[in-house]
Amino acid sequence: MNYKCVAEADIAYFISILGEKAVILDVESKALYAQDRTEDLHFEPDLVLIPSTPEQISSILKYCNEQKISITPRGAGTGLSGGALPVMRGIVLSTEKLNKILKIDHENFQAIVEPGVINEVLQQEVLQHGLFYPPDPASKGSCFLGGNVAHASGGPRALKYGTTRDYILNLEVVLPSGEIIWTGANTLKYSTGYNLTHLIIGSEGTLCIITKIVLKLIAAPKKNMLLLASFDSPEKACKAVAAIFMAGCHPSVCEFIEPEGFRLSSNYTGLAFAIPQNIEAYLLIEVDGNEEDSIMQECEQISEVLTKFDVVDILFASSTEQKEYFWKLRRTIGESTKHNNVYKEEDTVVPRGELPKLFSGVKEIATRYSIRTICYGHAGDGNLHVNILKDELSEDFWNHEVKEAIKEIFLLCKSLGGTISGEHGIGYVQKEFMPLVLDEMNLELMRKIKLAFDPNQILNPGKIF
Amino acid sequence: MNYKCVAEADIAYFISILGEKAVILDVESKALYAQDRTEDLHFEPDLVLIPSTPEQISSILKYCNEQKISITPRGAGTGLSGGALPVMRGIVLSTEKLNKILKIDHENFQAIVEPGVINEVLQQEVLQHGLFYPPDPASKGSCFLGGNVAHASGGPRALKYGTTRDYILNLEVVLPSGEIIWTGANTLKYSTGYNLTHLIIGSEGTLCIITKIVLKLIAAPKKNMLLLASFDSPEKACKAVAAIFMAGCHPSVCEFIEPEGFRLSSNYTGLAFAIPQNIEAYLLIEVDGNEEDSIMQECEQISEVLTKFDVVDILFASSTEQKEYFWKLRRTIGESTKHNNVYKEEDTVVPRGELPKLFSGVKEIATRYSIRTICYGHAGDGNLHVNILKDELSEDFWNHEVKEAIKEIFLLCKSLGGTISGEHGIGYVQKEFMPLVLDEMNLELMRKIKLAFDPNQILNPGKIF
Repeated sequence: MNYKCVAEADIAYFISILGEKAVILDVESKALYAQDRTEDLHFEPDLVLIPSTPEQISSILKYCNEQKISITPRGAGTGLSGGALPVMRGIVLSTEKLNKILKIDHENFQAIVEPGVINEVLQQEVLQHGLFYPPDPASKGSCFLGGNVAHASGGPRALKYGTTRDYILNLEVVLPSGEIIWTGANTLKYSTGYNLTHLIIGSEGTLCIITKIVLKLIAAPKKNMLLLASFDSPEKACKAVAAIFMAGCHPSVCEFIEPEGFRLSSNYTGLAFAIPQNIEAYLLIEVDGNEEDSIMQECEQISEVLTKFDVVDILFASSTEQKEYFWKLRRTIGESTKHNNVYKEEDTVVPRGELPKLFSGVKEIATRYSIRTICYGHAGDGNLHVNILKDELSEDFWNHEVKEAIKEIFLLCKSLGGTISGEHGIGYVQKEFMPLVLDEMNLELMRKIKLAFDPNQILNPGKIF
Repeated sequence: MNYKCVAEADIAYFISILGEKAVILDVESKALYAQDRTEDLHFEPDLVLIPSTPEQISSILKYCNEQKISITPRGAGTGLSGGALPVMRGIVLSTEKLNKILKIDHENFQAIVEPGVINEVLQQEVLQHGLFYPPDPASKGSCFLGGNVAHASGGPRALKYGTTRDYILNLEVVLPSGEIIWTGANTLKYSTGYNLTHLIIGSEGTLCIITKIVLKLIAAPKKNMLLLASFDSPEKACKAVAAIFMAGCHPSVCEFIEPEGFRLSSNYTGLAFAIPQNIEAYLLIEVDGNEEDSIMQECEQISEVLTKFDVVDILFASSTEQKEYFWKLRRTIGESTKHNNVYKEEDTVVPRGELPKLFSGVKEIATRYSIRTICYGHAGDGNLHVNILKDELSEDFWNHEVKEAIKEIFLLCKSLGGTISGEHGIGYVQKEFMPLVLDEMNLELMRKIKLAFDPNQILNPGKIF
């Protein structure tokens, strides 16, 4: 596709709709929208627009669709696959001003929000009504709910409560034509034609721009217990994961962490964390519920399972402070790695029981290519983040051999029944790997769906396909 | 669209692929495929094909796509919206011979099945491994899992455990071109391009034919308690529903039943069931879990809520026999109504808290049109089945005025944030009502998606749109 460059007349039009302050032209301000949290990528937009209403977004899209100007929608820019980067220049459209919680409906256990609401802001707000919005990406303190929907984001608690997908009832979206539609109804069950809501969830801003989200909420569990188990073998830790579920337990969180992950986050955050020499892996496990007795009982049951896999030590975090300490160490691993090194983060996912094979396979591939990896993530969901560190590797090796290693890792995922992204999306950096796991016909269907929504391909070009 | 009539040469081709026994031509046998459970509709196919493998289905579709012969896929024929009816003649393709459970994977809590497996057969089979497949349509004893996927079917337990949609990980499907693809991966999380799996769930056999289903399973709850609460006012029963959840309870089932529903199913099944004169509504509530104490505690809490809404009586079913008795009465209401009368079944759904308004609105509309309705269904999900009885109404009134009444009911649903089908699908009988709840642009997008999959529109013509 050839997109039109943004010209003076276009800028004048946008200013007439949005006002001057919402049309960002200066290089310094635009630079803030040239990156997300993906590797060290940098793509400068021609222009950044910051609309405040769905109607403004409608006018922008209608105009750009007619003029064939490309638009990259952007949430908080916390994505890990480059989805918010304007890789073909054009306009970045930021949803940061659509940041209102419009309704919390306690009677129906629903909330209606704009896409620029921060995940944790909503979580805290609904909690005050005794309600619970479970999806909790590591970036929950800054990521936007609109971005969560666009990526079908997960997080640690997806294990028990499901991903963002499971909490979306209905969406108001602006189509590239400028038309504003609701995709479904505000109901828990829906069987009224093709489910456009579910099609848009995970479509990474390539089909439409989300302007309102109707979310499902649930009752908040009253209590939880967090434990950190250490192992002298990562294989044993991985094998313990499926065994926990086979024993009838269902923790709300079950995270796998290689010691190097904690080492980096400890350095980065300044939180002291001693790692004994013999420790090769950790599992961070949370059990929640309404009754202390049954939580304790489940923790004991889990401990018994872990013992069978030669757990070295189990630390229980009972106070809020201790829990926050463990969580902070866990949540900052990605950020700490990025701070420490150039890295690529792969979002591998397999059926839970295949985790040992995935882990040992990743390590075997890494050894063969002489690259260093840190693995951690949502083990209970079979969703292992593989951070590949650049260290002293040459640019050439980084751009070629490392890609070959990633290909091997993804083919391994496929052979185990898995795929190349569990929760980060495809965006810009993973699109070249799509043919490894999907048939050409799958991609062809996706391209046709794209054209059904966006015939001029103005929305988020250069992503997914 | 003009479809080609099935000719001698076509029949010879199908016999060459499937063998003679799987190509049904005689009128008597074909008649078995001319109806489903929708009203008293009857559509004779030209031909019924009963393939045994995905490859045979692939050959059939490829041929029909080239020849422009229409194909209506059929599961068990238990649908309530006419989805399996060959309304434009052509071929009915039955999946009844693809009826194998291919794998139960205890380590990964997954099963792989063919589409012709009966829902309850799978439920029973996985239960023997301590696993649980929750979706339980009223027709679970006969309906096929393929049909459940095609309709995004629900059932009473959807309230706590979600609908069929929430248990589908991956699908093998045959496209109209004959190509066989997997739609995703066998993982709990998936963020790898547009989610074709979720698009196909609920697409009612209009996009492709499902040939394998990878299902998610969960651990089976160990115990449950069932209670039947009676009320002297349906409004109070409806209002109690949202209050139960607001009190922090989460029953696994919460069904609303008008006494006339039980009266019919009691007559039909021969199960004695006395309905006191003052009783105007029932709630059938199940609480499940792993520990008797917490189940009892939740039942007590629910009883307290019901008391606030002037419950008249609460019967507890503690034995398996008592539970089966209540369930049989509940599950046969639809069938009993059909046996007793010509009827239309509407599948209204609204946010849970709007149920009182939906119920009283339906009754007001029914009174105004002088039609008799029996309401029952999954109150906890806001999903109320409205059975409209023909009684002595004239054909003309039945086909015109009653449709106007249905329109009013559906507009009421929309005004309450709901829609026209929660779990039965649109199929043949509801398609004319689609524009009441969806914008033309929504329908246009659906039509384009249809064409992306099925450019010659051979699959299940005359449905949804």
